[in-house]
Parts: sequence; C-alpha cells; structure tokens
Amino acid sequence: MIRVGVNGYGTIGRRVADAVKRQGDMELAGVTKTRPDYKSQMAEKKGIPLYAVDMKSLEAFRAAGANVKGTLNDLLQRVDVIVDAAPEDTGPLNKPIYQQAGVKAIYQGGAGDGLADASFVAQCNFEEALGKQAVQVVSCNTTGLCRTINAIDRAVGVTKARAVLARRATDPDDVKKGPIDAVVLDPTTLPSHHGPDVKAVLKDLNIVTMAFKVPTTHMHLHSLILSLRKQATREDLVAALEAAPRVQLVDGKSGFKSTAAIMDLAREMGRPRNDMYEATVWKDSVSVVDGEAYMFMAVHQEAIVVPENIDAIRALYGGYTREASMKLTDAALGIAHR
Amino acid sequence: MIRVGVNGYGTIGRRVADAVKRQGDMELAGVTKTRPDYKSQMAEKKGIPLYAVDMKSLEAFRAAGANVKGTLNDLLQRVDVIVDAAPEDTGPLNKPIYQQAGVKAIYQGGAGDGLADASFVAQCNFEEALGKQAVQVVSCNTTGLCRTINAIDRAVGVTKARAVLARRATDPDDVKKGPIDAVVLDPTTLPSHHGPDVKAVLKDLNIVTMAFKVPTTHMHLHSLILSLRKQATREDLVAALEAAPRVQLVDGKSGFKSTAAIMDLAREMGRPRNDMYEATVWKDSVSVVDGEAYMFMAVHQEAIVVPENIDAIRALYGGYTREASMKLTDAALGIAHR
Repeated sequence: MIRVGVNGYGTIGRRVADAVKRQGDMELAGVTKTRPDYKSQMAEKKGIPLYAVDMKSLEAFRAAGANVKGTLNDLLQRVDVIVDAAPEDTGPLNKPIYQQAGVKAIYQGGAGDGLADASFVAQCNFEEALGKQAVQVVSCNTTGLCRTINAIDRAVGVTKARAVLARRATDPDDVKKGPIDAVVLDPTTLPSHHGPDVKAVLKDLNIVTMAFKVPTTHMHLHSLILSLRKQATREDLVAALEAAPRVQLVDGKSGFKSTAAIMDLAREMGRPRNDMYEATVWKDSVSVVDGEAYMFMAVHQEAIVVPENIDAIRALYGGYTREASMKLTDAALGIAHR
Repeated sequence: MIRVGVNGYGTIGRRVADAVKRQGDMELAGVTKTRPDYKSQMAEKKGIPLYAVDMKSLEAFRAAGANVKGTLNDLLQRVDVIVDAAPEDTGPLNKPIYQQAGVKAIYQGGAGDGLADASFVAQCNFEEALGKQAVQVVSCNTTGLCRTINAIDRAVGVTKARAVLARRATDPDDVKKGPIDAVVLDPTTLPSHHGPDVKAVLKDLNIVTMAFKVPTTHMHLHSLILSLRKQATREDLVAALEAAPRVQLVDGKSGFKSTAAIMDLAREMGRPRNDMYEATVWKDSVSVVDGEAYMFMAVHQEAIVVPENIDAIRALYGGYTREASMKLTDAALGIAHR
C-alpha cells in the first residue's frame, strides 16, 4: 500500500483525496486544512484523517471542536508521497518542509516554478517521473492540450500548434473574483504560460497560446489550430482522438452546444462532484482546411488533473509501468480505458 | 441634402438615426418603430419624426397617445435612402416594400442573405457600392476583421487568416437571452459565418473563423492569427494598424486589461451611448512568431457599423469619393481621421 497525504483541501485536494481512497493500492493517511469550515466537517464525516497545516491552525480546529490528528509535520511522518494541493504560489514555502521529512512530493501547476524534477502528464511522459523526488502535474489547460495534441502528433505529426484559451474566470464556490461582464486578457501579451508549460512535457512541440478570462465558473474552452506534417482527413484526426486515453468526443447534433452541456453529461454519468476527467473535443468541430486542423475542446478545470495526480503518485513510488498505473486509475475513477 | 429614413429603432437604428442627424449633408426624414415604449418616447422628445411599421402598429401608437406621422410606406415617400435596421432575418420581407417605393436600401449583416448588390466596409470597397440599388453593411465582427486584416494585407500581405471570436452573448438591454454561466459554441462546426462574410468584401483573402458566445453584453474579443507574405516585425504591423482608418491601438500597461476598460474609455471620451466606433487592437498583444502575426482585437457590437452605414448612404446616393465621405463621417462622429 502506498501511503498518501494531501496537503490542502480545496478544489484539487478534496478531489485527489477521494480519488486516492478509491485506489486499491493506496491508503489516504490524511489531509491538511488551514481553517475549520463545512469542508473539514465533511471530511470528518467521511472518516478522512484531518490535520492542521500548523500550530495556529491546530488551535483553531480544536477551538471549533474538530477532531484533528496533528499538524502537517505529523502527517508527513506517515506518508510515502505528499500531494501538494496548497494555495497558489505556496510551493516554495512547502518544498523545504517536504524535503526535511524525506517525503516525495507532487505539486500542482499553479504551485510555482522550478519546484519539481519533471512536469507530468501520464500518457505523455510517465516514465520521466520514475525515480524522481518531486514532479509537477501541469495545469488543467496544459494537461488538456498535451493529451489531444500528443494524440494527433503521434498519428499524423504536428509542425505547429496554436491555441486560443477562453478560461473560466474562477471556480463555482469562489464568490470573490470577477469578472461579471467582461472578457479579461490574461495576459495582454503573448504567449500565455500554457505554451511554455506544454513544451515542458512535449519538448519538441512548436506551440503559441493566447488566453483570456470569461465570466464562467465551469470549464475552459480551447480553440485549436494545428499545422499537420502529413496529409490527413478529419476522419484520421477523429480516429486518433478516439484512440487517445482520457479524451472523449461529443457532437453538437446530440445536444452538446456548450460547456454547460458537458457539465450536465458529467452529472448524468453520476460522476462524484460532476467531475469530467476527460479532455472533451467536439467531434463535429474537427476540420481540416489547407493542411491545418481546427477543433474546439473543453477542459474541466477542477477535475482533469485528478487522474494525473494518482498516476504521478505511482510513478514517484515506483514499481508500476505507465500502462499498469493508468489502467488502475481509470478503473477506479470510471474512465473508459484505452 | 440626402433624405434618409431608418426602418427599425433598436440597437443599430437608434445609433444610425442619431449619426444621420450629425451629418451636414443629410436630413433624417424619420424612423419607424413597431411598438410604443420608452425608446419611441425618447425619439419624440428628440424631435425625430416617428412612423409606425404598419397599420396595426399605427393603432398601437395612437392608442398610447404617441405623435406618429404615418407608416413605413409614408416614410418611404420622403426619402432617398432607407437604412434597414429591422429585426434579424426580416430583410426578405422588407426588400419588396423598398423596391416598390423605388428607394435605395442599406441592410445590416443579420438581415438575411442575397438582399443586396454588394457587401460594404467603407475603407475596403466603398467604390463597389457606387450606383447600386442596395448594399449590405457586414456584421460588426466582419467589419472589425475587414478593417484590421485589410490594413495588414496592404502593408505586408496576408496569405492566411485565422480568427477565434469570443462573442458577447447579447446586448445590454436584452434580458431574455443567455447564457449566464457557460460558453456556447455557435456553431459547433467550422467555419462560422464570419469567414465567408469577410470574403464577400476581401474577395481574395484565405480565412477560417471559429466563434462562440460568452456571458458578456459588451464587445466581442477576437484572437487573430495571420500568416504573412513578407517578413515583418511587430513594429511593421503596429505601424500599419496605426495608419489604418477606424482602428485604434490600446496597451495593457495603460490599464487596458479587458473589454470593460475599452467601454470605460468610450465613456471617458464622452461618446454618445458609450459608442466605440473603432476596431480596438491591443498594441502589446501584436506579436510575430515564425512568420505568423498574433493579436487581440475588441469590437463594440452596437457601434462599429454606425460609420459604415453613414458612408453607405453616401455611396448609394452618389457624388462622393471614399475619402470625401469618410472624412465627413469621421468629423461628424468624432473619429480620428486618417
């Protein structure tokens, strides 16, 4: 059994914790949280061992009558791998703590730069993480780009990729951020960070990305424009995407006209928290014009990296092949395995 | 004096009517409206001659105590050119009425297909409209694309244009339409209508467009990716855009981070109804990578076609050069002329 801890119990931490519990070869040693609230109360009800991030936080939990087992330092004594799901840009603060405890660590895309020995997308570079002390699961958008572009690159070759990202402004439970009625260029300059991030995984890919925020809370919408090495039809591309792990195709004719329909599909599928783990490509958008492929893709920002975190745990722990790990993960999370 | 009527007093009709009043060589003979409401009351207060669209509409206005001069048919007897700003897709119903009255007509982008003898963007093809009976001012997005791409095409050549359009879902006074929290692919297939519409003006341009709706009411946001014929720097492109009529450049460093900032600029400029007539390009987004130009552009859906309608009136009436007409229009509307 791989003993796993999750540091942070927000959007990603909660999902990774539940996903760890579903794996037959993993044990959730515990999760940390900063403050007591309904989320920590739900964790207690689910029987998840709860830890405070530090002594001050511990006092707050005890004052609230919560059943906390100790602090992050105590949790680190009981795990083989820690999944860092702490707030953005706090990776540099946490890294020495994990190192001190001699625990392997997985960081999320937003944790900071230069924290890890490799960037990680399971189906693209699982092997690169083997034997490493720390890896960084790339951001949700970068994960989606890597999955789909890599599938097409393997099938017909991609000489240049361009992606325009319409990003959801913030997550559904965050009522503090905007915008309400505007499109925010983020950044106004090119490229957005996603292009360089993709290249940390797909090292030879030529890619430029542009990104802006729109007033939604669910899913990013990507418009992809790919120059192809070989002549290919749209059917060739659809076949490559249908064969790709953790990519699903949907069709406008079946009622999938918006990101809201994809989230509704996740609910119909009975997924926990309506999570859509798969990069979702509109099949009827896939087009080839003058040697360039075009398509729309949606990425569920809260969910797509969950299977990647699970595979990253096995890659750091060792003893698994890419295929073996992804098969276990997909089976446990209800993802169609290919 | 060119006698002008405006059929329809909605988003575009109201703006064109006011713009006609500002021209020294035009007389606003009147506007039509279907139902009495605050908009028709405001028109009366402004001294704009008000007509009902038909007899039933006339009765409704009279019952509401409005001072109406007659119906559309009466208005058509008093004009040289009618600007059709009626609801979407009603062009085919109105065309025989205008023809019967022997009045030249200008249609908007959404009026329908095949109504006019030419598509129209003043700085691109003013001359094509000379002597015609009817022209169609292309949609707001198509107008923005034509202005900017034509400027770059003239300067360095554009061998292929790709545009991703994040469209405002609906206008600020329309509370019936969505979406509230989703991105809607419109359509899910490629290309969106904008590509073919641009080619109706810039006939030799190779262009593919993708479009989706986002939950905003102000401005469309375009991401442009242009393959260039000649080697060019970003400074070359910025210079071409700075020299282009009805295009303005803004910079993220000056606080222009979103479409909301562009609308706020229009308010600071004292523009009527906050109208931004200029296609607005983020100067700091203009980039050249591997022979391809990238940039962000915002288009104010309610305003950008207003100067085009005014120039189209002069083109149909005759006796003006492109330069003479655009100079008059720009002066009257407060647009920096170049």
